[in-house]
Amino acid sequence: MSVWELIRKKRSIRKFEDKPLTDEEMHRILEAGRRCQSGFNSQPWRFIVVTDRELQEKLSNIGGATQHMVGSAMAIMLLSPHAEKSDRYWQDMFDVGQASAYMQLTAADMGIGSCPGSVVRPEIAREVLGFPDEWDLKLMLSFGYPDKDEYPDRPPKQGTRKPFEEIVRFNGWSSD
Amino acid sequence: MSVWELIRKKRSIRKFEDKPLTDEEMHRILEAGRRCQSGFNSQPWRFIVVTDRELQEKLSNIGGATQHMVGSAMAIMLLSPHAEKSDRYWQDMFDVGQASAYMQLTAADMGIGSCPGSVVRPEIAREVLGFPDEWDLKLMLSFGYPDKDEYPDRPPKQGTRKPFEEIVRFNGWSSD
Repeated sequence: MSVWELIRKKRSIRKFEDKPLTDEEMHRILEAGRRCQSGFNSQPWRFIVVTDRELQEKLSNIGGATQHMVGSAMAIMLLSPHAEKSDRYWQDMFDVGQASAYMQLTAADMGIGSCPGSVVRPEIAREVLGFPDEWDLKLMLSFGYPDKDEYPDRPPKQGTRKPFEEIVRFNGWSSD
Repeated sequence: MSVWELIRKKRSIRKFEDKPLTDEEMHRILEAGRRCQSGFNSQPWRFIVVTDRELQEKLSNIGGATQHMVGSAMAIMLLSPHAEKSDRYWQDMFDVGQASAYMQLTAADMGIGSCPGSVVRPEIAREVLGFPDEWDLKLMLSFGYPDKDEYPDRPPKQGTRKPFEEIVRFNGWSSD
C-alpha cells in the first residue's frame, strides 16, 4: 500500500488482539524511529519499550488517555528533552513527532495498529522505569494487532478535519 | 515501496530539478498533512505554499539553512501556534512534526524529494506572506524532483545515528 493510501485509511487503534509482535516487527518499528531525521541530527529522543503487562498497568494512568497501553503488544515511551533545558524545544518536539509518525506508519504498513497518548504525570513513569532526570516524557505510543471485534473491516470514517481551503493557502495568507 | 524501505532510503534533497509538480502531486502532499492526526484533533497548523520564485527569493533567509527553497517546486511554510499562547506547545510542535513527516513520506513515495528548514526570522515571512499575528512560523519544507547531477542513484550513505542500544531500552531505562 502506498504511504498515501496508508494515511487515508489509517485510524487510531486503542484495543488490541492478545497477540505479541515478533522481534522482527518490533525491531523494524523501533528502527524506523531511530533512523528518523532531526534538526542538526540531534536525535532528541530515547525509546523505552514496555511489553511487560505489570509495568503497563503501573503506567496506564500517566495520561488522561493512556490506558490503551494495557494489553498492547508494545508500548513505547518517547523520552524527550525538558523544555527548560533546551533552547530549541520546538525543534525537539517537532523531531519527536516525525519519529513517532515514522514508527506508526511503518507499523500500519505491516497491519499493526497504534495510538499515541499524551503524558501528564511523567513522574510516575520515571519512578517505574527509572529514567534519568535529564529526560522528560510527554508522549507515548501503543502498538498491536487491532482487535477484530472492535475494528471490523470498513471504509475509513468521514473526516473530521478542517477544510482544505482553511488549512492551505497559496503564495500568501490570502490565497492568490 | 514499503514505508520501511522509503525511510531506509530517504535522504534530504536540497537541490531540485527545474520541473514543477503537477496539481495532483501538490494536492496529495498537502492532503497528507491536512489529514494527519493531532492531539484532541486540534490541527495546530496552517500551510502556506510558495511556488512563486520571487517570493521564494524573498523568504530564502528566514533561516540559516532555508535557501534550498529557492528553485524548489513547492515550499511549504508550516505555521504553528505561538509557544506563549499555547498551554500544550509540546503537543502542537509534536503534531506539526507528524504532519510534516506525512507530507515528506507521501512525496518520497512519488519520487519527490524534500528537506525541512528551521526558521529563525519569522518576521520576514510574516511581512512577505501577510499571515496574522496569532500564527508563528518555526519550520518550512522544500519539495521538488531531485537534481540528477547532485543526487546520482546510489545506495543510502552509512547511518550517522546513535546505536540502537543507546536509543532503545526494554522495560526500563536499564534494559532487562
